[in-house]
Amino acid sequence: MAKPRFQNPKGTRDLYPEELLRRRYITQVWRDTSIRHGFEEIDGPTFETADLYAVKSGDGILGELFQAFSGKSPEEVEQVQKEGRAPFALRPEFTPTLARMYAARAAQLPKPTKWFSIGPFFRAERPQRGRLREFLQWNADVMTDPDSSDPSSDADLLDLSANGLRGFGIDQTIARIHIYDRRWFTARAAFHGVREDAVPHILTLTDRREKMPREEFESQLRALGVADSWIASLSAGGGGTLPLAPAALAEFVGTPHGESQGAHLAMPLATALSETALVDNADWKSSLALFDSRIVRGLAYYTGTVFEVIAEGERAVAGGGRYDNLIELLGGPPTPAVGFAMGDVVLSLLLEDKDLMPEGQDLLEAVSRPGASLRPEAFVVTADEALDPEVRRLVATLRRGVPREAFDGAPWSSDRYETRPLHARRSYKSTRNIGKLIKDATGQHARTLVIIESAEHATLQHLDTKTKLENIPLDQVPAKVAELTR
Amino acid sequence: MAKPRFQNPKGTRDLYPEELLRRRYITQVWRDTSIRHGFEEIDGPTFETADLYAVKSGDGILGELFQAFSGKSPEEVEQVQKEGRAPFALRPEFTPTLARMYAARAAQLPKPTKWFSIGPFFRAERPQRGRLREFLQWNADVMTDPDSSDPSSDADLLDLSANGLRGFGIDQTIARIHIYDRRWFTARAAFHGVREDAVPHILTLTDRREKMPREEFESQLRALGVADSWIASLSAGGGGTLPLAPAALAEFVGTPHGESQGAHLAMPLATALSETALVDNADWKSSLALFDSRIVRGLAYYTGTVFEVIAEGERAVAGGGRYDNLIELLGGPPTPAVGFAMGDVVLSLLLEDKDLMPEGQDLLEAVSRPGASLRPEAFVVTADEALDPEVRRLVATLRRGVPREAFDGAPWSSDRYETRPLHARRSYKSTRNIGKLIKDATGQHARTLVIIESAEHATLQHLDTKTKLENIPLDQVPAKVAELTR
Repeated sequence: MAKPRFQNPKGTRDLYPEELLRRRYITQVWRDTSIRHGFEEIDGPTFETADLYAVKSGDGILGELFQAFSGKSPEEVEQVQKEGRAPFALRPEFTPTLARMYAARAAQLPKPTKWFSIGPFFRAERPQRGRLREFLQWNADVMTDPDSSDPSSDADLLDLSANGLRGFGIDQTIARIHIYDRRWFTARAAFHGVREDAVPHILTLTDRREKMPREEFESQLRALGVADSWIASLSAGGGGTLPLAPAALAEFVGTPHGESQGAHLAMPLATALSETALVDNADWKSSLALFDSRIVRGLAYYTGTVFEVIAEGERAVAGGGRYDNLIELLGGPPTPAVGFAMGDVVLSLLLEDKDLMPEGQDLLEAVSRPGASLRPEAFVVTADEALDPEVRRLVATLRRGVPREAFDGAPWSSDRYETRPLHARRSYKSTRNIGKLIKDATGQHARTLVIIESAEHATLQHLDTKTKLENIPLDQVPAKVAELTR
Repeated sequence: MAKPRFQNPKGTRDLYPEELLRRRYITQVWRDTSIRHGFEEIDGPTFETADLYAVKSGDGILGELFQAFSGKSPEEVEQVQKEGRAPFALRPEFTPTLARMYAARAAQLPKPTKWFSIGPFFRAERPQRGRLREFLQWNADVMTDPDSSDPSSDADLLDLSANGLRGFGIDQTIARIHIYDRRWFTARAAFHGVREDAVPHILTLTDRREKMPREEFESQLRALGVADSWIASLSAGGGGTLPLAPAALAEFVGTPHGESQGAHLAMPLATALSETALVDNADWKSSLALFDSRIVRGLAYYTGTVFEVIAEGERAVAGGGRYDNLIELLGGPPTPAVGFAMGDVVLSLLLEDKDLMPEGQDLLEAVSRPGASLRPEAFVVTADEALDPEVRRLVATLRRGVPREAFDGAPWSSDRYETRPLHARRSYKSTRNIGKLIKDATGQHARTLVIIESAEHATLQHLDTKTKLENIPLDQVPAKVAELTR
């Protein structure tokens, strides 16, 4: 008699020990990087009310999802039989859950709120290389005050995604972050003489470009009043890229081509990025961040910045952007927000292609390394507003990691890891009173406090032992912090 | 206009940062303990083919589950509308997935195979205190050769569950592991003059005892030929408990009461347990393991040992047992297996009641502690079969943990943790050739090798540096290993 043999459902994975360790390696890099950037972990249910997704994406979304119901509830079984749709859906993405959770406690939450999450997600797509029906996803989001309009939270989030990549050994030779912005697109439309009220239609159309014949795409654009010159460019996915560094952008802005692409509007973000570990303004060719006017996917949904991490072969490893309206849509107060998501499927393929996935004993050691400290190892403040850029720069340097030679005795078991990234935070309080800033640091359980005194020097204070080091040159601070927090 | 407001589905949880950290604390203790006991992590899909559960538990199980289908598949939507049942189910337990995965690769897997898993599970029950519709569960299982019949894998698994409890600070004053065995029950039935073929019926009946009136329960037992004296005892949940230590059991076995409960059959397990960190034969009153003839839940399903971790207030924190037929049922070869599961909901309530859940900075530090090393810190062998019990004893001691005073310079940030448990393994190979045993150790990437030379002494060898220490008294081995693997 043949025995029943069962397999995992199509598009899902069985993880035996070796595969599970690879997954652990990925989730640990995601988690450790998030923690070091001052993000706090949250999670929600694996399934949500189906309507939550319909509110965000329209009723049609239910046809793309795995739907669920309780076999114990006669009402739910009856509903499913009658309507062919269930009351719940396995989560296809995290943003609606996050927005719902933020909306429920908005009044008590700090500004900004920085959250990350790692867990399983589900889509009813046809399984193929790079796409599964169950996959893991890392989500990170920054929610700010409604009246905060500076691009520092975009820069903060982009820096996190960059260090997320670097944690795996992915640098600008392997993947780059391509950035555009709905507002830049609107300026571009104006340059081409298109009326502002046509912009949403053009965006929806360009988002669907690959789903229709070229002729239809072009004739619909023409009907919206788009000039032939721009139609040709949009249709060919035209536009260009350049490093999103102030020096590179400044040159481009002066050209007619730069103006046509809204490049002048990108300067504040470029400046903010140059304070992170993401863009080196002196060596902008090595920039991980690119200004890319070809980015159209998502422009119809997001309200500002949009970005995609694109590796060789046009593989999208991650994506995200600014969605300032969603939390209000789900019942919260008006809340500007920016977030991104990275899945494990395309990332795994990339790591394997590039021989960046440790194996055997290396894998055991990589996964056994001590994780990020949940207590911030450094909390950086200044009493002088003019030094705020130095604060942001130092925080980014600490998070990127201290070269191994800068301190000794670190407990690494493998040469693979040449740096020790630190958990660094800064104060978001408006006060300049050092006493109050120290309170902020101890309230967040920081281990050391770094007070930037001038463009050259800082004072270091160990908050547990009260040891104090004065007049430390700024470039020596990371090694000193690493030493104090060993 | 009222805005739509969404909540999490009933019986699920939103985990904000503080709750997420508590969950991380729990999963880290589970994971670290499993790794130190030589278990390897695996995982399967979040949903499985519904039939997988029906094969194990009968078709009725589908009415207890969350069922799922692809909203994109017209065939699946049609099936759900027609039959009111879906092709998939959110996993209510891990064992069927594990059995399916083991069956698929049985021929290549080592003997024993020791697997653990941590993830979300789902039941369509009415939510109440201690029961949610989505919860986390830790599963651990040992699969052995069909001809292996010694109780050491039961002892291995029970020791893991005991150290899982101790990792949270739960000792025998808070919870104990209550153990019984289907085979002991069969002997008990024989003692009471019940025919063997009636035993499965009695077990199914006692499993459902709480779901029927006492009179009905008793009359059905009577119909099965059970004598009134035993009916009274079964009906009252009667029987007794005693520490499952050889010394305690030996006394009980000699009494008529002992014989009536099959206690003599428990001696091999008691002996195996006395080689673990679970039972101290010299101080058996402090035993975490109890012989408990009142354990009936699960006896109908399991084929041998059955156990429940029971805390004050009769709260069941975990449970498990031996299921020697399931893997064959799912298409694998005959495979004796023993496993347990511990959920996070009752455990969390217990930790909070007992003030064992760290808070604030303590919680941050507890979750930031270095995790278990995936490379075994000690691999224990002997060339002398007579010393096998010493091997098992030493492995258990290493896993339980080395007192903090025994070595210095350990990187603990809190006084909460007084011991450093180690990842210890032993060879399961039958060879007594030390060269082959060293190969086994290096194949498993062990850091040190401990060769037990006599009942008093061992040789220690650091497998990376080749340092060798000879004539180490057995009771000093743990501290030496801790020192060598700092």
